Amino acid sequence: MERRSFLKKAAVGSVAGATGAMTAPSLAAELPTLNWRLASSFPKNLDTIYGAAETFCHRIKELTDGKFNIRPYAAPEIVPFNAVLDAVKDGTVEIGHTASYYYYGKDATFAFDCAVPFGMTSRQQTAWMMHGNGMKLMREFFAEHNVVNFLGGNTGTQMGGWFRKEIKSPEDLKGLKFRVGGFAGKVLAKLGTIPVQVAGGEIYTSLEKGAIDAAEWVGPYDDEKLGFNKVAKVYHYPGWWEGGAQLSFYVGKKEWDKLPKLYQAAIETASLEAHINMQAKYDARNPSALARLIQDKTILKPFPQSVMEACFNAAQETFTEEAAKNPKFNKVYTDWVAFRNNQSQWFNVAEQSFARFNMARKLK
Amino acid sequence: MERRSFLKKAAVGSVAGATGAMTAPSLAAELPTLNWRLASSFPKNLDTIYGAAETFCHRIKELTDGKFNIRPYAAPEIVPFNAVLDAVKDGTVEIGHTASYYYYGKDATFAFDCAVPFGMTSRQQTAWMMHGNGMKLMREFFAEHNVVNFLGGNTGTQMGGWFRKEIKSPEDLKGLKFRVGGFAGKVLAKLGTIPVQVAGGEIYTSLEKGAIDAAEWVGPYDDEKLGFNKVAKVYHYPGWWEGGAQLSFYVGKKEWDKLPKLYQAAIETASLEAHINMQAKYDARNPSALARLIQDKTILKPFPQSVMEACFNAAQETFTEEAAKNPKFNKVYTDWVAFRNNQSQWFNVAEQSFARFNMARKLK
Repeated sequence: MERRSFLKKAAVGSVAGATGAMTAPSLAAELPTLNWRLASSFPKNLDTIYGAAETFCHRIKELTDGKFNIRPYAAPEIVPFNAVLDAVKDGTVEIGHTASYYYYGKDATFAFDCAVPFGMTSRQQTAWMMHGNGMKLMREFFAEHNVVNFLGGNTGTQMGGWFRKEIKSPEDLKGLKFRVGGFAGKVLAKLGTIPVQVAGGEIYTSLEKGAIDAAEWVGPYDDEKLGFNKVAKVYHYPGWWEGGAQLSFYVGKKEWDKLPKLYQAAIETASLEAHINMQAKYDARNPSALARLIQDKTILKPFPQSVMEACFNAAQETFTEEAAKNPKFNKVYTDWVAFRNNQSQWFNVAEQSFARFNMARKLK
Repeated sequence: MERRSFLKKAAVGSVAGATGAMTAPSLAAELPTLNWRLASSFPKNLDTIYGAAETFCHRIKELTDGKFNIRPYAAPEIVPFNAVLDAVKDGTVEIGHTASYYYYGKDATFAFDCAVPFGMTSRQQTAWMMHGNGMKLMREFFAEHNVVNFLGGNTGTQMGGWFRKEIKSPEDLKGLKFRVGGFAGKVLAKLGTIPVQVAGGEIYTSLEKGAIDAAEWVGPYDDEKLGFNKVAKVYHYPGWWEGGAQLSFYVGKKEWDKLPKLYQAAIETASLEAHINMQAKYDARNPSALARLIQDKTILKPFPQSVMEACFNAAQETFTEEAAKNPKFNKVYTDWVAFRNNQSQWFNVAEQSFARFNMARKLK
């Protein structure tokens, strides 16, 4: 700050000496130089998700004439992928970029900031956050963790994952060792599935050796890089537990409160740019990746209707149980479920009917 | 600029006199005060579309510490709704917010920056613009009009409009006096429809008097305000000519080139915020508006499959004709159609199968 207060005095002095008529020096001249560290939950090879942090940091720098520097660190450079919340909360880093359902184990309420089984699509989730009560409710919740949360991307509907054997009925879920996390794991456990935690880098070998029977990751563009189709041929869809998985930026509350208004505005707007940019990048890259995977002998299969129904019912049961024992979850769920249910009529009318007709036909 | 160059000299003088060791004064301190006028194509009562300009201007002001002021004017305060392109091109205003298909009459190529019949959904259009060749191709095209274009919102799939009588077959389109514009009008004319131009404020009376048989506007949230269901009971869907209608900001090329880099960055990021914010607002507001319209005796009807097929074929014919005679159209169409067709497999797999299952079921 020394340079800053020097500049201020110098400017005032020169002005008085020159004309005596200058307005006060602009706030912009007084903006502090800040260097922040951003802990990402993602490795660099997930260039679409990790890339959102890069997009964000780059824009913040441009918007502040290079004075507000945020340097992104891929996981696990500073902290493990699922420790970003604590790193921000404790002040180890000023800011993080993560998926809130990684913290489902601390409190199921975190999932509403990312994805809930049979929840909302990418657009619906963004609508709830920006023009429903989503952001307001999640800000209240995150405040208890000293975090101010911002939208930070969405993957769109993910795939159901890679299976060594096709799932033909709910029976096939019993005893299935499935690399799947958080909320989905809890729902699937009701149907006899054994949710297993395996780090991203070890999924391939675990599948190959048969230590697990199935694994879900993201979607065609990211999955292709890890080569899962070499060791598990059946690619099921949809990933009903991630109809539109949202990523988030977490800013430490204390750091946020200290920021000049212009820097706060820069974070608010740059996070939304990163948010839409990630979805656009996935939407542009996934189609060709899927086509290549199919070319490469992937067997693309929808989950059977009976499996979808069983999972939906198990999800409803899980929500009811969680809401009964967790008042924070119940508060958000009540608002979230009303918004979700209210979306269906409209989306079935214009969006779905158009997409269904239109996406079944090629133009020349 | 006088204050700016004065500030610069004063700062340099004071620094030399004080320590002689200061780094150059920061660019931020030299940022000019600018006052721009934004001509919107939209009236204030279309608060979602018009509101995007307000969101944008507000953010630009915050990002520049109040130095870059853009004042939005609703249509037709400065120019008529369909004259925003010329107003920016000629320098009457520095910036505009508009729908590019309003300029379809000048060149059909404009439509790719907004909506093309049986084209892309909101997400697909954004993906093409941001991570396909869309923005690159449209920037080339707009450069000939002295315009630098930016994304400025999307409505999502619109409704097919309000009809005094239900459309039951392609035959019913013959002789239909339909208030519908540009590209859709041209396609429908092939099927015998008579496209009619009626200003937004006069649609209600024209429908009531039977001067027109049908009119399309936007979707439930905007349509409800104009009370169309009082005079035309049948609400057809989907608006296949606007699967995801994009709005745009137009900045005058000369003005853009003069802007400091920080102001350019502010426009780039704030336009994307306005872009996503508009879609989120429509997605949050349309469902309840549709429910109210149905409650109020609106008859909701899909266009019959035979009508959709006939319109799709007529659209294909129109594209082929236009591409044959307009090299600019042909250049963009070639890229656009490849991107559109490539989207279908992936969207039918994860997004559509999830949405179809999920939006047919309520959670409690």
